[in-house]
Amino acid sequence: MPLNRLVLTPGEPAGIGPDLVVRLAQQPRDCEIIAICDPDLLTARARMLDLPLSLDILGDTASPATATRAGQLRVMPVPLAAPCHPGTTDPANASYVLTTLAQAIDLCRARQADAMVTGPVHKAVINQAGHAFSGHTHFIADRTGAAHVVMMLVTPGLRVALATVHIPLAEVPTQLTRSSLASTIRVLDADLRCHFGIPRPRILVAGLNPHAGESGYLGREEIDVIEPVLDQARGAGVDVEGPLPADTLFTPDKLARADAVLAMYHDQGLPVIKHLGFGCTVNVTLGLPIIRTSVDHGTALDLAGTDAVDTGSMDAAVAMADELATHARA
Amino acid sequence: MPLNRLVLTPGEPAGIGPDLVVRLAQQPRDCEIIAICDPDLLTARARMLDLPLSLDILGDTASPATATRAGQLRVMPVPLAAPCHPGTTDPANASYVLTTLAQAIDLCRARQADAMVTGPVHKAVINQAGHAFSGHTHFIADRTGAAHVVMMLVTPGLRVALATVHIPLAEVPTQLTRSSLASTIRVLDADLRCHFGIPRPRILVAGLNPHAGESGYLGREEIDVIEPVLDQARGAGVDVEGPLPADTLFTPDKLARADAVLAMYHDQGLPVIKHLGFGCTVNVTLGLPIIRTSVDHGTALDLAGTDAVDTGSMDAAVAMADELATHARA
Repeated sequence: MPLNRLVLTPGEPAGIGPDLVVRLAQQPRDCEIIAICDPDLLTARARMLDLPLSLDILGDTASPATATRAGQLRVMPVPLAAPCHPGTTDPANASYVLTTLAQAIDLCRARQADAMVTGPVHKAVINQAGHAFSGHTHFIADRTGAAHVVMMLVTPGLRVALATVHIPLAEVPTQLTRSSLASTIRVLDADLRCHFGIPRPRILVAGLNPHAGESGYLGREEIDVIEPVLDQARGAGVDVEGPLPADTLFTPDKLARADAVLAMYHDQGLPVIKHLGFGCTVNVTLGLPIIRTSVDHGTALDLAGTDAVDTGSMDAAVAMADELATHARA
Repeated sequence: MPLNRLVLTPGEPAGIGPDLVVRLAQQPRDCEIIAICDPDLLTARARMLDLPLSLDILGDTASPATATRAGQLRVMPVPLAAPCHPGTTDPANASYVLTTLAQAIDLCRARQADAMVTGPVHKAVINQAGHAFSGHTHFIADRTGAAHVVMMLVTPGLRVALATVHIPLAEVPTQLTRSSLASTIRVLDADLRCHFGIPRPRILVAGLNPHAGESGYLGREEIDVIEPVLDQARGAGVDVEGPLPADTLFTPDKLARADAVLAMYHDQGLPVIKHLGFGCTVNVTLGLPIIRTSVDHGTALDLAGTDAVDTGSMDAAVAMADELATHARA
C-alpha cells in the first residue's frame, strides 16, 4: 500500500510553528511529510534549538511518497517576505503565511497530497496586514468551495464537534437554526463514516439550555430547533441521541456509548476535552473535500526558539492526518 | 469538641430520597443525623429494601448531639398527607415536602442544628400542587432572608461556583450584571474563608464568550462587565484571576493553582466537574446564614425502592455538611 503524503504549514513564522516542524523532523515516520515554508526559516530555527536538520528542497510532487527519516525533511519552498525574528510578528509576512496555506490546499485538491496539517497562525497580524481572515477553517472552506464545515476536537477516547464556534455567546441562540444544525449533523455523520471508518456513528447531542431546557421551562430551543432536527436525522438513518443535558453528557458511562458528542457552542463542548486531552488534542475540520488536521493551540510567541515547546498536539495532528488519509483511501 | 447535628430532608417521598436515608443509616457516623420526614415512610422503604432500621422518634432537639449508630436513625416526624407509592408522585404530598424543608431551615436558624442536607425534590409536582417553587435554593434563601446566594458544586480536587444558574442560555448575557457578579464573588470568597477554612482563596474566573472574548472581537462582556468587577474585587483583597478562556481553564495545571473556579453559566461550569465527580459531587449553597448541602442528582422515580440506588452523592453531602459545620464553629 502506498504511503500517505502530508503537507504541513508551520503557520506564523515568529511563533512556535517552525519549532514544531524542526522537532517533528527528529523522528522517523511511515508517511511523507512536506513542509511548505521558507527553508531558511527552518534552518535558522534548528540552529537556535541546536537540533540536526537536513532539508530536501522539492520542485514538484510528481514522485511517489516515501517515508520520512529522522533529521531529514522535505520542503516545498515559499520565501518569507521579511526577515523573521522569533517572538515578534511582522504584518509583512502575512501574505507569506496565506501563500503557504493556499499551496497546501491546492496540492490536496489536486490529489498530489493526501492531507494537510496546519500549525498556529496569528489572526490579528494577518488582519492588520489588510487581509480579512477569520481563521484557517474559513480560509480553507472558501478556497475549496465547501458549503458547510464543522470543527471537531479529538483526543483519545473523546470526539467533540461544535454546532456553533467562534461567535459571542449572545449570538449562539439566534445562529443555531434548524438548517445549520441539520447540515452540521449531516457533515459529522458523513465524515465519521468516510474519514474515521465508523460504519454507524453514535452521536450524543447536547441541548442548548441548562438541563436541555427542562421541557421548555428553561428555554424553548430544544423543542423548536433541536428535537425536530434530530427526528429528521433519525429518519435519515443517523444514530443521534438527545437533546441531552450538557452537564451530565460527559460522564464516563455516557461517553462510553458514543463515537462523538455534538455540543451546541464552544464553551459547552470544549472544557471537558481540553481537560482530558490538553497537550495532545487535535482539531479536525469536517465537511471539506480534503483532509485537514491542526494543532489545538496558539502561536505561543514567547516560547518560539526555546526549549519549552511541547510537540504533543502537532505529533497527534500528524498521526491523525495520516490515519484519516488511510481511511479515505479505503 | 461537641458533635455536629445535621438535619436531613429526604425530599420527594416517591423518589429515591427515602432509599438514600435508609441506606445512609446502615453506617455509623461521628455526627448526629436527624431525618425530618414521615417515619412510616422510612420503615416501609427499609422493608422493601430488606434493610434493618430502628427509628428513634424525637420530640425536640434539646439534648446534645450524639453519634449515629449503624441501623439506627433519629427522626423528627412530619406525617405524609397522602399514602406514598414509590415511583408515583402525588401533588397531595407537596405541602409535606415543603414542611420538612421549613422545619430543617428553622432548626438551623435557631442553632438547634448545625447544617441541613437535602435529598432531591420534584419541582414540577410541587408547582402542580399550586406552590410557586423554583427549587430548594430559592426556598431556603427566601425563608432565611439571604440577599444573594451562590450555587457551588464540589468534588475532590475541584470546586465550581456559578454566576448564573437555571435560566435560558439566551438570558445569560443580560442577567450577568456588574452588581450580580460582584455579589457572587463577595459571597464565594467569604464562604470559602469561613465555611471551607481557606484563609486566602484563589479564584479562577471564566470569561463569558469563547476565548474570553478575544479582546472584544468575540463579545464585549469581558471588557464591559467582568474585568471592571475583577479589578474592584482585587482592590478589596480578593485573589481573582481572569477573565480566562473557559475551554482551557479546566486543564489540570490551571486547576492546581485554584481553590475554586467561577463559571459564568451552568453548562460552562458543570460538564468538567460532573465528568470528574459524577456520583459523588455535592451541591453547596453559599451566601446563606445556615449551612446547606445537597445531592447533585434528581428524584430518579424509576429507581425508588430498588437495589440500583447509588448513595455516593448523599454520603458526600453528609460528610461535607459535617466538615463545613466544624469549620463554622472554629
